[in-house]
Amino acid sequence: MNEIVRAKVGQAVELLRELDLPLWIAQFARETGDHPELVQGLVVGMSVTWPAAFVITAAGETTAIVGTGDRSSARDLGAYADVVGYVHDVGPPLLDLLRRHDPARIGLSFSVDDDTADNMTHGMYLQLERILAGTSYAGRLTSAAPVLSALRARKLPVELDRIRAAIESTHTLLARVPDLLQIGASERSVADAVRREIEQAGLGLAWDAAHNPIVNFGATSSTGHAAPGDTRLDAGMLAHIDVGVQREGYRSDLQRTWYILEEDEETAPADVQRAFSTVLRSMQEGYRALRPGIAGWEVDAVARSVIVDAGYDEPEFAFGHQLGQLAHDGGGLLGPRWPRYGARPEVPLEAGNVFTIEFGLPTRAGAIGLEEDVVVTSDGAEYLSSPQTELVCLRR
Amino acid sequence: MNEIVRAKVGQAVELLRELDLPLWIAQFARETGDHPELVQGLVVGMSVTWPAAFVITAAGETTAIVGTGDRSSARDLGAYADVVGYVHDVGPPLLDLLRRHDPARIGLSFSVDDDTADNMTHGMYLQLERILAGTSYAGRLTSAAPVLSALRARKLPVELDRIRAAIESTHTLLARVPDLLQIGASERSVADAVRREIEQAGLGLAWDAAHNPIVNFGATSSTGHAAPGDTRLDAGMLAHIDVGVQREGYRSDLQRTWYILEEDEETAPADVQRAFSTVLRSMQEGYRALRPGIAGWEVDAVARSVIVDAGYDEPEFAFGHQLGQLAHDGGGLLGPRWPRYGARPEVPLEAGNVFTIEFGLPTRAGAIGLEEDVVVTSDGAEYLSSPQTELVCLRR
Repeated sequence: MNEIVRAKVGQAVELLRELDLPLWIAQFARETGDHPELVQGLVVGMSVTWPAAFVITAAGETTAIVGTGDRSSARDLGAYADVVGYVHDVGPPLLDLLRRHDPARIGLSFSVDDDTADNMTHGMYLQLERILAGTSYAGRLTSAAPVLSALRARKLPVELDRIRAAIESTHTLLARVPDLLQIGASERSVADAVRREIEQAGLGLAWDAAHNPIVNFGATSSTGHAAPGDTRLDAGMLAHIDVGVQREGYRSDLQRTWYILEEDEETAPADVQRAFSTVLRSMQEGYRALRPGIAGWEVDAVARSVIVDAGYDEPEFAFGHQLGQLAHDGGGLLGPRWPRYGARPEVPLEAGNVFTIEFGLPTRAGAIGLEEDVVVTSDGAEYLSSPQTELVCLRR
Repeated sequence: MNEIVRAKVGQAVELLRELDLPLWIAQFARETGDHPELVQGLVVGMSVTWPAAFVITAAGETTAIVGTGDRSSARDLGAYADVVGYVHDVGPPLLDLLRRHDPARIGLSFSVDDDTADNMTHGMYLQLERILAGTSYAGRLTSAAPVLSALRARKLPVELDRIRAAIESTHTLLARVPDLLQIGASERSVADAVRREIEQAGLGLAWDAAHNPIVNFGATSSTGHAAPGDTRLDAGMLAHIDVGVQREGYRSDLQRTWYILEEDEETAPADVQRAFSTVLRSMQEGYRALRPGIAGWEVDAVARSVIVDAGYDEPEFAFGHQLGQLAHDGGGLLGPRWPRYGARPEVPLEAGNVFTIEFGLPTRAGAIGLEEDVVVTSDGAEYLSSPQTELVCLRR
């Protein structure tokens, strides 16, 4: 993780300049081994026992103020040029640093709107207020959420490599799923087998085990964020899986759909095939709309209109979300302008953003669901996954 | 964990009455699968995706206000009698609840001093302020740290059972350590072997893998919170191990010391034996001082004086810390009144508190370190571990 953290600290300096924030206390926290914060995976890279301040300035200075017991870890990390150890009180060295820089604004890692940028406890905020009490710095505190959001969203090449590796592992896993799709197998048994393979491969889960993978067999299965159940696979059913892994701190998120042929069938029924083709076309047209500068809701609208124009009910969820150190990596969303998504669909896409694109439709044979992972490039987008382009029919 | 959470919610109601806090918003958070808070293991018992409020009143009413997608998990948990689902905004149902109770004070889970009671992000605090803006409730927010600290510290019988189980597993593990203590074995190899056994037993680590177990061979090994190194075991050395496991959410923390006999020795050298006996006596006298009402610093002073009166240097650390869902479970400490421990040594002990007791001494053969786990009872204390009472000498 050190390589990532060192690179992201460098990126943070550029972002502070771009967003005109002179100084950012990226983390002000304690005992983060017991309760880690997301910012640690981006620009901190270690846990601390005693209260510590990790400070980055737009001038490019990086300082970690840590209890002496955490000093050697901070030095070994090598992401902060200046490592200051203290014995009694984190306050004086932090005040010294602020006096030296005299920043017009002091960014802190909290956010009302974006949980992935909300990385500071209220108790530590109050502790900082106490340290700054009576100084002019007390009135200069501000949210650094724009920096933190951009830092999550703009993936560096080293981060893209890790996301690609997680996706590659997921493709390997998915290639073995048809073997598990035997008549009579339950959703739960397939989910358990996939989870065992993930564990045996030394990978982590991209989200909680109760819902990873999601497995749906046939039309009576609960779709959405539902746990796999007792439904058993039979001919004439669609088999749908939504799975993601974690590899070296980065995650994948993919969906695939198969059809189990009836004895007398050569292909899936025409209405099932038509629903699949519609979902596929919505994915492909949404993908082609991806480019820097376009708002997330505009991409969602392109894909959504394919579904609706074909006469199907409108999907009740967004077309895509960001992906990275988290499966739902926060920030801008490829979603409709519905109140429940707040301002997230308004965020313009940037080169280096990694999104899922995902749509689905219910059919009388079960749920169709496709999900790919993509990166926005300077003039469009690239697939990070190898897209599913046809409904694979299995004879059992 | 549900059993624990249901029991702790009941205990929280009693504590709210005792500490005269009419209403506690135990957790106000979102996406806690991605960034869990410690309070979840005590009185929440589930993670949420959408902003949620878990509310407990002194009148014994318990309400979980959650996004509709989290409603079935909250119902399945069964710890909150009233589960309110919302679609758009957590604010209105939370305000309704406050209006119904009209509490004089509203406790929140934040703390400047105690990180284990500091379980609310600053962003969520601001979100709550927005919800309460313009109402009389805005001025009634207060820290519920005393409730949270007591809730952690006063272990219920079901919690003591789990701590006992974690300790039992640790004893099983420690019984196999002498087999690993062969001439030429490195600290690192022994630590790796112990960690493998912990994993194979299906147990977790009580603290980070880099320092669990801590293994020290001989006088040149780095003691304290240092990672095991390349030092190899030889005759005439002390072998010291500090290890803790996690079992069903609760932890153990024990230290043991062995002496490797030289060919011509029948026992450890007299000075090593004397240091061991002094540490043992400090443990036993400190243990006998444990009882409800005594302050932590008084217990520390009893144990510390045994070491100092025997002519050894004063230990540079506290005699004991609390133990539970965390290895360092926060709150009151059996420690000296040194500034770095703040007010924690002043906290009076209560029946049901679980502490480690631990002291050590350096010798020319290496580090002696003993650590036991104890529970404070109505009139004294009981050992939860089977104490080491003699320096076991191994012939290799």
